[in-house]
Amino acid sequence: MASIRDVALRAGVGIGTVSRALNGTGYISEETKKRIMDAVEELGYQPNELAQNLYRNRSGIVGILVPNLDHPFFSSLVKAIQNDLYLKGYRCIVGDETEGQNRLGEFVELLQRNAIDGLISCVDPNSRIDTRMIQKPVVVLDRNWGDTFINIHSDHKSGGAMAAKLLIDAGVKKVLVFRPEVSGRFTYMERYHSFEQTCMKNAVTISYVNLKQNKLGYEYDYTAVWNHRELLREVDGIFAADTNAAACIRLAWELGIRVPQDLKIVGYDGSAFTKYLTPRLTTISQDVPKLARAVSDSMMGLIQGKKNIKKEQIIDVFVMKGESV
Amino acid sequence: MASIRDVALRAGVGIGTVSRALNGTGYISEETKKRIMDAVEELGYQPNELAQNLYRNRSGIVGILVPNLDHPFFSSLVKAIQNDLYLKGYRCIVGDETEGQNRLGEFVELLQRNAIDGLISCVDPNSRIDTRMIQKPVVVLDRNWGDTFINIHSDHKSGGAMAAKLLIDAGVKKVLVFRPEVSGRFTYMERYHSFEQTCMKNAVTISYVNLKQNKLGYEYDYTAVWNHRELLREVDGIFAADTNAAACIRLAWELGIRVPQDLKIVGYDGSAFTKYLTPRLTTISQDVPKLARAVSDSMMGLIQGKKNIKKEQIIDVFVMKGESV
Repeated sequence: MASIRDVALRAGVGIGTVSRALNGTGYISEETKKRIMDAVEELGYQPNELAQNLYRNRSGIVGILVPNLDHPFFSSLVKAIQNDLYLKGYRCIVGDETEGQNRLGEFVELLQRNAIDGLISCVDPNSRIDTRMIQKPVVVLDRNWGDTFINIHSDHKSGGAMAAKLLIDAGVKKVLVFRPEVSGRFTYMERYHSFEQTCMKNAVTISYVNLKQNKLGYEYDYTAVWNHRELLREVDGIFAADTNAAACIRLAWELGIRVPQDLKIVGYDGSAFTKYLTPRLTTISQDVPKLARAVSDSMMGLIQGKKNIKKEQIIDVFVMKGESV
Repeated sequence: MASIRDVALRAGVGIGTVSRALNGTGYISEETKKRIMDAVEELGYQPNELAQNLYRNRSGIVGILVPNLDHPFFSSLVKAIQNDLYLKGYRCIVGDETEGQNRLGEFVELLQRNAIDGLISCVDPNSRIDTRMIQKPVVVLDRNWGDTFINIHSDHKSGGAMAAKLLIDAGVKKVLVFRPEVSGRFTYMERYHSFEQTCMKNAVTISYVNLKQNKLGYEYDYTAVWNHRELLREVDGIFAADTNAAACIRLAWELGIRVPQDLKIVGYDGSAFTKYLTPRLTTISQDVPKLARAVSDSMMGLIQGKKNIKKEQIIDVFVMKGESV
């Protein structure tokens, strides 16, 4: 395989000149550049990326950390972010936290070691990570990392109110809500706060089932609802994330409860799989392409050292009309 | 931030000795090693991974290429492979081909450039890639790359026969099959061949709908079935991948066809989302954890230069019992 030495020899220039031409640094005349590029092509030279990265002190890689890659919201989000960054010349390493390892700690270390140029986090920090120590590009999606980080999230405040309104307009009086059990202030919890406020204003009573936080996935989310299935008999409305709401549709059928006649269900996320259900789930959809675009644009801005990137970016949600309300 | 020079100074050794200790190469006495590690800890030294990688000529990264990351089979497969490789000290860059870009060409170039140490491919080669030129670690999952590559796949031959048997035992006489339209010999197509053979032996007639290859995903797979929904009235059995089979369950309901009384449906893949359907899909399940284990073990073997890795590795499938047959 041709080396940089062979290219320099063929082009009649020094190795440093070839290196400058390939890395786009320093002045080189157009004529010399053409001679080098011709030599590169003739010899089929492929630069060693490890050497190039060391030279530039960048890896060309961004890390994305999610609670669970095998979850309809996160698999579509990761796919979209990854494709956006790919078009900007970046590749992604994806980590997921379901196995209970300290992936966040590892990804933060990757950042410090220059193994990744930036970190996109859809997970909360833990007590082992001092986020104040991180001076490198970090974009947070819908998690609580503190005011110094860019936080991009859906307009959950409107989303919760929209969900409540759908149920109230359909005449619901008693709602059961499946929600994650968290302490502290989390942007994604705003949907439950505004849902509650809207219900209270309209004399709708609410009861809650609290689910373990970040224990996401089809299996867990189905079983969590199954454990509380008898509660479905005591209400006329449900509000829950799509994977839980879909379980309610199935379990209502098993219990002989008609949806939407006897029980009205609103989901949250807008997952594509809900199209297959009977009845189809009516759900508040997060705008994955817009979230992904905001995340990747902000990440590129941080990597390029831009100063005026908006700290909090809020993306509209919308109703995905189904048959469950 | 502390440099390797500071560590060497504190430990009273040369820089080369520190480098050998951190990279685990060459002989160093236990006593010296301890002194170096103490210095590393006291100074909070973090090695620059880019420099380390150049030294070792490895990136510590494996590339995984899939047709579509936002597809229930591939998102669970990627998650499983990634977690296995993580426990072996490797990270993964994931690419997906839905956007129609030449991701395979890019990933092969990453291999040649040492940006990744190995490639796991769940996509077919294209005319722009000369696979014979690739001398680096490649593991192929269920695609047609030729005999020189390690190919790991489910036992589709048994899987197809198992699906046919489920339908035949339930009394089906006319089956509609949704299958990808491919030319050439592909391991994943064996399910359709053995399905057909088993049906023919039992005087069951088969008709086909051919779907565009590698056009995967909830949206496409639903629409593809919708376009042919009137055919559901003309048969009493269906065999299709889960995302298509799930669409048949929904569309049968819309058309007033009872499943399984009037129409029996068998899926393929074993996707978790089918648990939410009514009726639940009976499906031939691929063993994702075992596929992932075989892929990651083989990849590690190739990276470590092992010679005796089995070229074709076949993983058992099993029936995931639902309510659609």
